[in-house]
Amino acid sequence: MAITVVGSVAYDSIETPAGRRERCLGGAATYFSLAASYFTDVRVIAVVGEDFGAEQEAVFQARNIDTRGIERAEGKSFFWEGSYLNNLNEAITHNTELNVFASFSPKIPDAYRDSEFLFLANIDPVLQRRVREAMPGVRMVAGDTMNYWIRDHRAALLEVLKGLDVLLVNDTETRMLAGNNNLVRAARGVLSLGPHTLVVKHGEYGATAFFSNRSFNARGEGVGPHPFRAPALPLEEVVDPTGAGDSFAGGFFGYLASQREVTPAVFRRAMFYGSVMGSFAVERFGTERLQELTRKEIDDRFILFRELTHLD
Amino acid sequence: MAITVVGSVAYDSIETPAGRRERCLGGAATYFSLAASYFTDVRVIAVVGEDFGAEQEAVFQARNIDTRGIERAEGKSFFWEGSYLNNLNEAITHNTELNVFASFSPKIPDAYRDSEFLFLANIDPVLQRRVREAMPGVRMVAGDTMNYWIRDHRAALLEVLKGLDVLLVNDTETRMLAGNNNLVRAARGVLSLGPHTLVVKHGEYGATAFFSNRSFNARGEGVGPHPFRAPALPLEEVVDPTGAGDSFAGGFFGYLASQREVTPAVFRRAMFYGSVMGSFAVERFGTERLQELTRKEIDDRFILFRELTHLD
Repeated sequence: MAITVVGSVAYDSIETPAGRRERCLGGAATYFSLAASYFTDVRVIAVVGEDFGAEQEAVFQARNIDTRGIERAEGKSFFWEGSYLNNLNEAITHNTELNVFASFSPKIPDAYRDSEFLFLANIDPVLQRRVREAMPGVRMVAGDTMNYWIRDHRAALLEVLKGLDVLLVNDTETRMLAGNNNLVRAARGVLSLGPHTLVVKHGEYGATAFFSNRSFNARGEGVGPHPFRAPALPLEEVVDPTGAGDSFAGGFFGYLASQREVTPAVFRRAMFYGSVMGSFAVERFGTERLQELTRKEIDDRFILFRELTHLD
Repeated sequence: MAITVVGSVAYDSIETPAGRRERCLGGAATYFSLAASYFTDVRVIAVVGEDFGAEQEAVFQARNIDTRGIERAEGKSFFWEGSYLNNLNEAITHNTELNVFASFSPKIPDAYRDSEFLFLANIDPVLQRRVREAMPGVRMVAGDTMNYWIRDHRAALLEVLKGLDVLLVNDTETRMLAGNNNLVRAARGVLSLGPHTLVVKHGEYGATAFFSNRSFNARGEGVGPHPFRAPALPLEEVVDPTGAGDSFAGGFFGYLASQREVTPAVFRRAMFYGSVMGSFAVERFGTERLQELTRKEIDDRFILFRELTHLD
């Protein structure tokens, strides 16, 4: 089933211990949709400037991603410049230019309206909510956010959380959102704000899903009170961590959308596919690695993740 | 098969967000031997002062731990005072009094000499090496160390590493030991120093085992080039993190020693039992929780760890 994703399509200038790249194609919606495209149909809602040309468009086309919802506006695309020189787990932002994103007003093509899955990538919660409300027929909604919205736009964000099935955030964001330093208690606090399920991304340590009583209740099944933890791959070289979290989300949600129903077993496999796509994303700069994967490479790595964690 | 462990038996004054305790029974050898005692026979080599009385002795006796190698010396036992008020992952040391430990010279009771497993807990590498050399007949040797020995006693420590089958250390210690910030490369560096297997403890994120070509080569088996990751339990309250790593080591090595041979499957289960014992240790202050477990509680939690990580 098709996923519609709303979020940023952008240019990134990135410096890591492995080198520097100027104006790579990036943005949360880009990473998400490339990762998800290996599992299901993906439709993007975003805005880009006049600097977004045929070369960038071709990256989406090559993965059969529907770009009819990518609006072309006068001006320049969203631009981010950052580095990870001392700590691959945390970017230092040197420059953010919202450009055409500053006045982004998401427009949903009619052709997207039968999407059964909706992903609200990290953007202004006011826009997330607007897209959510414009697509009342979706079966499952997942979303991301960041410290800035949690701290300074809390009221708007809380409205978004009420409409989410799954929230994907990192450890710090989980603690900030709940105002509790203990991850388990913070997770419970976040679940009380709306999402049925919370996926906490731990960077190089993988990700943990926490479930409320309402997780999976469509089938009357649950995975019980216990969380589920997917590993990350211990990698010899992380070339560029940019987009790892969005690629996790894409693998995770793409796999969920590809399955007939979301059972606890399907959910667990989705967590693994999320980690798999995150592990590929960081192997090269920008979206390079995500552009040229094969399903066999993905499934081989899935098996590797199983070997990494399973007793037998 | 029996394990001999050499290390500290001490008193700890501990402050955590859950409260404060004065002069709990502690020390690496204490945590290790209590955790391992649920799996196999354990024999301790340590030194204590005149403040170590019948009450402390009874803690070991209740778990059938052999204390004939705990020497009583004039003076006071090793004492440590620390707190974890802002960060449960890292203790702030307020006071360390070596006391009788300052002149510790390990003596190995004859009754310990047929031990097939030897654990060198975190003490001066000169003493670790002396005990290792005094027990040439052991089948498997594991050990721990800490930043102080890595930084200031490197030459002595390198001699110890040459004689280890398994080294258990944390992320920071692994990176320091190898002089490399990437965990996978650092692990390879550490393995080149001697240990066949490296277990890196990640605190609340579990532990990862890295294997060299020589891991398991007695049977011509290996787990391949891939590491193995055991989770930690997401806990609602960590009452006291003191001893979590030593309890991990006790569960891990205790389980290995209880098995007829160390195969890759046995090793993986040992990693899980390590995490299980670490998760119990932090539920109460000091060794309280480790003193009163049942094998059923341990195995139930093992099953929980499997559910936490396994796809099916």
